[in-house]
Amino acid sequence: MKEQLISITSASNPRIRQVMQLQKKRKEREATGLFAAEGIRLFGEIPSGWLEQVFVSESFLEREDAQTILEQAENCEIFSVKDSVFAGMCDTRTPQGILAVAHRRDWTLQEILKLSDRPFFMMAENLQDPGNLGTILRTGEGAGITALILSKGTVDIYSPKVIRSTMGSLFRVPFLYIEDMAETAAFLRERGIMVYGAHLEGSVPYDEPDYTHPSAILIGNEGNGLTDRTAAVCSRKVRIPMEGAVESLNAAMSAGILMYEVHRQRTAGANRNCCSRQ
Amino acid sequence: MKEQLISITSASNPRIRQVMQLQKKRKEREATGLFAAEGIRLFGEIPSGWLEQVFVSESFLEREDAQTILEQAENCEIFSVKDSVFAGMCDTRTPQGILAVAHRRDWTLQEILKLSDRPFFMMAENLQDPGNLGTILRTGEGAGITALILSKGTVDIYSPKVIRSTMGSLFRVPFLYIEDMAETAAFLRERGIMVYGAHLEGSVPYDEPDYTHPSAILIGNEGNGLTDRTAAVCSRKVRIPMEGAVESLNAAMSAGILMYEVHRQRTAGANRNCCSRQ
Repeated sequence: MKEQLISITSASNPRIRQVMQLQKKRKEREATGLFAAEGIRLFGEIPSGWLEQVFVSESFLEREDAQTILEQAENCEIFSVKDSVFAGMCDTRTPQGILAVAHRRDWTLQEILKLSDRPFFMMAENLQDPGNLGTILRTGEGAGITALILSKGTVDIYSPKVIRSTMGSLFRVPFLYIEDMAETAAFLRERGIMVYGAHLEGSVPYDEPDYTHPSAILIGNEGNGLTDRTAAVCSRKVRIPMEGAVESLNAAMSAGILMYEVHRQRTAGANRNCCSRQ
Repeated sequence: MKEQLISITSASNPRIRQVMQLQKKRKEREATGLFAAEGIRLFGEIPSGWLEQVFVSESFLEREDAQTILEQAENCEIFSVKDSVFAGMCDTRTPQGILAVAHRRDWTLQEILKLSDRPFFMMAENLQDPGNLGTILRTGEGAGITALILSKGTVDIYSPKVIRSTMGSLFRVPFLYIEDMAETAAFLRERGIMVYGAHLEGSVPYDEPDYTHPSAILIGNEGNGLTDRTAAVCSRKVRIPMEGAVESLNAAMSAGILMYEVHRQRTAGANRNCCSRQ
């Protein structure tokens, strides 16, 4: 490992500046096809083929397990960075001393359609909160979604906060950004996939549809919900009933409740589902 | 209204200092039995009997609707505060110019047991994240919980971040802090209430129990789950199944999925529940 190490001491080094740009700017990530991921755990979850560069702080190299952690980086450049410079590259307040620059992996609609005969897509239109998007991806992996489909107006899944809140699901669940959510929803419907839009004025209780068929759940923006244009294309508008004076649930929570209803229906044996409570 | 207005210009005024203490310190809130709530919407949701004092910024008083908003404060003192001083009292970055000091409303176990013959309690042990607690209360109101029971090691429900994330549910859903979660769980079981502990190693899929009977859902700390002592007292340990490589779901998400499963069972007609998918 030692022979791979390249030392950087200045914060104005072009590689350091590029990392800072990748951390801050969606445009930079899109233009270069790269993103940055911080921390030991996330680093360990990046598929090794995606890795481009690894940056470690000088303190990190003093860890007994530094060499073990860095094993998966054997084919890429590793930069040793002064602690003070490293802190400036990080989005977290207490950096763990390791940051990777990796290649984006973007899927196409054609690719994700081939993944399953009975797909279960999660779709989000213009979601703005990074924590919500990360939580949806993490919960979606748990609920067994086939892929996540995002409108281009949705927060960047490669932004530092989203990456952290996905807890590694980013590297395991296929996802893609699409230009036009209404068109994509119509396209999926033409292929026999029911598109269920979460809607406060939906006429169908969320647990009524049969999600064991090819299905997509579609949720909208935190404040405004689905755009009218997209809502109009949905196969059905579903509603999560709410007691009390609650006007709406958090967007990630709504998505999670809907996704786990799909999962429940898809995994529950017909017997247990229907007879145990009678 | 005008005659009620008392003007404060100095940040060292004792009332201003008390608000700052209430914002920052759980001990101060517990010692005085008071808490602070910011913003127009939250102010409008505080039951008027709870109100003690209202602070408004000078800019707020220039709003056309200032008098209308303040109508519910007719029986309490209203302080007009310089904008710069007001900003220092607030936990939010962009204060809306109104902050209320109100009386805590704490319930007793005896009181909440009288609320329903078929109660549905949500219980949380040592939950640390304010956003999680707020989201659980908000989702819990939507799912129709009877009350929320919190271990004393749980983050303070009257802290500014929790209050904001409850979106007003704080003023509508009964809740209480209890000394000993394991003892309380045992106490509820003795009264015929099934206590379902969310547990990663639970043997029962979460959708298997019949929650239409008196039930309590119990979740633990974000990182560590339930304490062994409390887990041992649960009627059953339930598990949310997870696909992929997900190790756990976010604590609020887990609580939300469990609470809505209870709600689904309690509201779904047996026919719709069991026959529509056959």
